[in-house]
Amino acid sequence: MVMETVRMIVESLNAEGESLIDRVMATVRNRISSRVLTPGARLPSIRAFATSMKVSKSTVVEAYERLAAEGLIRSRPGSGFFVAAPLAPLSLAEIGPKLDREVDPLWISRQALEADDAVLMPGCGWLPPGWMPADGLRRGLRALARGNAATLVDYGPPLGLLPLRQLLARRLAPRGIEASPEQILLTESGTQAIDLLCRFLLKPGDVVLVDDPCYFNFLALLRAHQAEIVAIPYQPSGPDIGAFAEALSVHRPRLYITNSALHNPTGATLAPLVAHRLLKLADRSGLTIIEDDIFADFEEMPAPRLAAFDGLERVVHIGSFSKSLSAAMRCGFIVAPRGWIEPLTDLKIATSFGGTGLSAPLMLTLLKDGSYRKHMEAVRGRLAKAMAETALKLERIGITPWLEPQAGMFLWCRLPDGVDAAELARKALARNIVLAPGNAFSHAQTAGGFLRFNVAQCVDERLFREIAELMG
Amino acid sequence: MVMETVRMIVESLNAEGESLIDRVMATVRNRISSRVLTPGARLPSIRAFATSMKVSKSTVVEAYERLAAEGLIRSRPGSGFFVAAPLAPLSLAEIGPKLDREVDPLWISRQALEADDAVLMPGCGWLPPGWMPADGLRRGLRALARGNAATLVDYGPPLGLLPLRQLLARRLAPRGIEASPEQILLTESGTQAIDLLCRFLLKPGDVVLVDDPCYFNFLALLRAHQAEIVAIPYQPSGPDIGAFAEALSVHRPRLYITNSALHNPTGATLAPLVAHRLLKLADRSGLTIIEDDIFADFEEMPAPRLAAFDGLERVVHIGSFSKSLSAAMRCGFIVAPRGWIEPLTDLKIATSFGGTGLSAPLMLTLLKDGSYRKHMEAVRGRLAKAMAETALKLERIGITPWLEPQAGMFLWCRLPDGVDAAELARKALARNIVLAPGNAFSHAQTAGGFLRFNVAQCVDERLFREIAELMG
Repeated sequence: MVMETVRMIVESLNAEGESLIDRVMATVRNRISSRVLTPGARLPSIRAFATSMKVSKSTVVEAYERLAAEGLIRSRPGSGFFVAAPLAPLSLAEIGPKLDREVDPLWISRQALEADDAVLMPGCGWLPPGWMPADGLRRGLRALARGNAATLVDYGPPLGLLPLRQLLARRLAPRGIEASPEQILLTESGTQAIDLLCRFLLKPGDVVLVDDPCYFNFLALLRAHQAEIVAIPYQPSGPDIGAFAEALSVHRPRLYITNSALHNPTGATLAPLVAHRLLKLADRSGLTIIEDDIFADFEEMPAPRLAAFDGLERVVHIGSFSKSLSAAMRCGFIVAPRGWIEPLTDLKIATSFGGTGLSAPLMLTLLKDGSYRKHMEAVRGRLAKAMAETALKLERIGITPWLEPQAGMFLWCRLPDGVDAAELARKALARNIVLAPGNAFSHAQTAGGFLRFNVAQCVDERLFREIAELMG
Repeated sequence: MVMETVRMIVESLNAEGESLIDRVMATVRNRISSRVLTPGARLPSIRAFATSMKVSKSTVVEAYERLAAEGLIRSRPGSGFFVAAPLAPLSLAEIGPKLDREVDPLWISRQALEADDAVLMPGCGWLPPGWMPADGLRRGLRALARGNAATLVDYGPPLGLLPLRQLLARRLAPRGIEASPEQILLTESGTQAIDLLCRFLLKPGDVVLVDDPCYFNFLALLRAHQAEIVAIPYQPSGPDIGAFAEALSVHRPRLYITNSALHNPTGATLAPLVAHRLLKLADRSGLTIIEDDIFADFEEMPAPRLAAFDGLERVVHIGSFSKSLSAAMRCGFIVAPRGWIEPLTDLKIATSFGGTGLSAPLMLTLLKDGSYRKHMEAVRGRLAKAMAETALKLERIGITPWLEPQAGMFLWCRLPDGVDAAELARKALARNIVLAPGNAFSHAQTAGGFLRFNVAQCVDERLFREIAELMG
């Protein structure tokens, strides 16, 4: 009775009463969103809920009424309150800012993946099939057909084919990354590698730093993990260190995902000074960094790798050969601190069971002989030429590269003043041209005047004519 | 001042004070576990936190002191309280009940995946390599080597190779499942199919029903999704319908994952009556069901499929050919309600980008010609023989099958009274025998007296001698 009186005093004071109503409403919302209460479920009775929340019955009544007014619950006279809104399954399109489907990152990927030969795809992120070593793959497949039967029908070992992991370790050494084969875990793709790490490291609501602009699939992937994304402006020599330091102290992020060499989409290369500062900051605040290095073999001169400076303590390095050998050979890898491999392997088995199937032995065959080195030499030469030509043709129609990349396939370009990249991409799609508008890469939506061009996909002259025409 | 007095009255009442301290402690714990406060971070000042939590300063002091006593935070005299415990990344081994590593489900998988030829693996979940159609795969690989260059080097289309989806749709029809190719999404494995669906459907804390016993990787996968698992006793004709109905009303689950035909590990087959009741219950409570049908082609007589009865409204059907064609061919599929395919495809691109690589065209080649049908006929015959022989040999050493499966590779067996399966598995491992102890399949840990035998892996007579010896 004393308690009840005290409660009444407390609740009669308006601010306090409001905060209790809010607390009750928040509790109900929380139970609905966490599906403790599912659509159609009856809410606790007013009396029971008041007791369990240690508030008065009138507080619960008011909270229920407000939730009903919001449409989240509804009352059935005589029988109480029920959860109203059916909860749709998780759709990526509904998380994060709602974008126009035609220019959202996943849509660009899907357009490019679905496109037939009549479509020009300067916006896509890979080389045309004619640039890829199909003959090497044919030889590799024939070798596989002659090989060991168990390789053809069994699951591989949990970490992935040992000779391939040994070879990858040897390939990392010249870039200054010293890893034993036991620190390398094969995955089904570079994307799956990052996904597995996100599962391992993140909880919903964790803050993750990305570059602005960054590879658009990082944004889609992080949304799937319900991470909170904080974007750091990217400059020609790496992320803006001042902004990075501030983000660390304000947001306490768990993770930073970046490309050190041949940054996607800008083509920039991380400067040693920036790399060093970045690692010092990361060290101080316990930040983990994922260094996505899938364009490694496109480089002419090795740029500094965060994983090399750091010695794989807080930097995890990931790679794949989808861009250089074959996108149909599903195999990526994670190079991680020693203690991480065992729990990561458990997670891999739990979520995709097997290993990399036929891709690992095929990749081993292709990487072992000298043809891969020769193939990439040729690709680099061809890209350098295409880069110079494309830059020139773009300049002629008023589109200016942000920087001159040292290598790779991407040119990050500024459009003439007043031209909106998303609008241009929409119009281009109607003419069978898939462009990659800047804001697809920008979490902060600061790149509305940019496009990313893949120079290997810019050989057809029609492209420049059509874009010039569309820009009016 | 009035407020402060009221608060003091409230808090001086002991129970209420305790509950406020608990609330403050829970808030801090929550901020740490959600990484709003990371290791080394300074906690809010006592004054500030008291104001924001609307409690007295002494309540916050008491809460901080208790958390410090727990070792979660520590005080630095003069400068406040700090988060102490470094937070390890998410490890599957730490979620769910802590099991002896030697008998936990993931460990069984890893033992089996790592085992060399000297190891006997009656506990493993797949056929020996000699049972698999290696020659067919060799032919398939040679055909692929002669084929289209783009197939060898490109990402496939987002939903997966259309001719393969068409063929899968035709193969589903005789089982009563009517799906258009647009309702089929290719994935990298059966496990990845379920994982993708869990991502799509679940939030951490959602309740999921499984059978007890069930395929152990369901448990590992659901733990990775931080789902709350509720296990329903499985009987020879399907799940216990009474327990199922009760679980629906008590736990309000989001999902039920099961095998309809050739249940893993029991080899049981769902009876039409149970299937019908189950669907009626699911319908009433808005439950989604994942029907994992990867053993479909091992059946002699088609059992009822939930997806057939339901017409793909609330049942999602998944399959793969890892057990029947090759585990190295990474390709599974989801057959889902129409509206789900687009968001599922988005999720697939975000989390693993590409498609099924070379596996899809290879699988198409192998399924198209008549050799797969003949291969499976032979496998079924061979398994029926191995099943009868193994059952007999097991009975001789006192191990009794729970039921006589209609087909498949699994025998779920009761050990003699007093023999503990986990203990036996531990001892067997020391003798190079990988067993599958019952509790690895049992969320409720009710199967300590059971083992699952794979009859195709029980050809070596040594196995029965050794087990008899170990059981004493």
